Amino acid sequence: MAISPSEIIDSYHFRHACKEFDAEKKIPEEIFDTILQTGRLSPSSFGFEPWLYLIVQQPTLREKLREVTWGGQKQIPTASHLIVILARKSHYMRYDSDYITHMMRDVMGLPAAVMEKKREVYRNFQQNDFKLLESERAMFDWACKQTYIALGNMMTTAAMLGVDSCPIEGFDREKIEAVLRNHLSVETDKFGISCMVAFGYRVREGRPKTRQPIEEITRWFS
Amino acid sequence: MAISPSEIIDSYHFRHACKEFDAEKKIPEEIFDTILQTGRLSPSSFGFEPWLYLIVQQPTLREKLREVTWGGQKQIPTASHLIVILARKSHYMRYDSDYITHMMRDVMGLPAAVMEKKREVYRNFQQNDFKLLESERAMFDWACKQTYIALGNMMTTAAMLGVDSCPIEGFDREKIEAVLRNHLSVETDKFGISCMVAFGYRVREGRPKTRQPIEEITRWFS
Repeated sequence: MAISPSEIIDSYHFRHACKEFDAEKKIPEEIFDTILQTGRLSPSSFGFEPWLYLIVQQPTLREKLREVTWGGQKQIPTASHLIVILARKSHYMRYDSDYITHMMRDVMGLPAAVMEKKREVYRNFQQNDFKLLESERAMFDWACKQTYIALGNMMTTAAMLGVDSCPIEGFDREKIEAVLRNHLSVETDKFGISCMVAFGYRVREGRPKTRQPIEEITRWFS
Repeated sequence: MAISPSEIIDSYHFRHACKEFDAEKKIPEEIFDTILQTGRLSPSSFGFEPWLYLIVQQPTLREKLREVTWGGQKQIPTASHLIVILARKSHYMRYDSDYITHMMRDVMGLPAAVMEKKREVYRNFQQNDFKLLESERAMFDWACKQTYIALGNMMTTAAMLGVDSCPIEGFDREKIEAVLRNHLSVETDKFGISCMVAFGYRVREGRPKTRQPIEEITRWFS
């Protein structure tokens, strides 16, 4: 690899939650494709890719989203690209769903015997280890966790390529799911919103990053 | 930035869930520090850094963890470095906690008036937007989501620096929290386990990555 530790750390300092973008500046296609590919190539639990990315470029649709997103008032209208990250609900993610069969058989190409063993491990994980079957919310939040891996990766990729971003959780879940259902044809019985992330180019410099010192967030057992 | 799209994509293909590491090969200190720093510099909702990283190097402690972690049988004993990622529970994350006050006042350095406004927005977010106050699990899972941003970033950083990794969710939550409480002095009323991540150097090549095609995981509204 030709990437150095200091280049990586620099990109982490470059990234900040950019609250307003230059509406005139568009991200070149190759760059946005790279960002999106790192969302696709991100890891997820059992490799089941519980994400669906809506890239919302139509101004009228962005306006509908902005109306119910207090945390995205300036980002949504000015972003070069806006991704609404959806996560799959129980319909897809349960161990006995058609989607899981599809992922194992068609995407991973597993032989039948391996597939059944993996499904059994996954069932036990969902039922006993993480107790995901106890509620739709538990299952959905777990799927959302996986999408946050992709979220982090896409923002870091952007920063490494000189692109700003803003992750957005500031919305009323019920109201935004109504918008997704009514205006973007999202099957909200099967998908829920995890978060949004806006990409573009800053109009002003961000404030310096604040973080707890490393000693406060680590404990070594050497 | 001097990092190119192809270098980024290459590192995503390099990364895979490495199931066994070369126990003789240790990650140089500067490299591991960089990985950990990207965990520290990762973004989190409202900037409240809900993570605590336990770096477990003692073989006897690793053995205790391995006993209750079916998903880490080979990774835990052979990893150069093992991080148990903890997430903060309601005690820390509630809008009215001492920790949130500490973060706003001492870490972010916010003036009192700004602090109270931010707390009010955060309260409304927890109470109404994401309904995190409805259960300890809802609050905890939301804190865990933030740690998955850091998880993804640390694995990507590792890959960029030629280091392999494996994220681990394969454990019984109750049993492992007993180990954390009894052997690593973790205050499990205040912290819970989010996941683990092992780092080291592969002993054999991984299988080629499988993913759904980009068309299956994206919808464009142009």
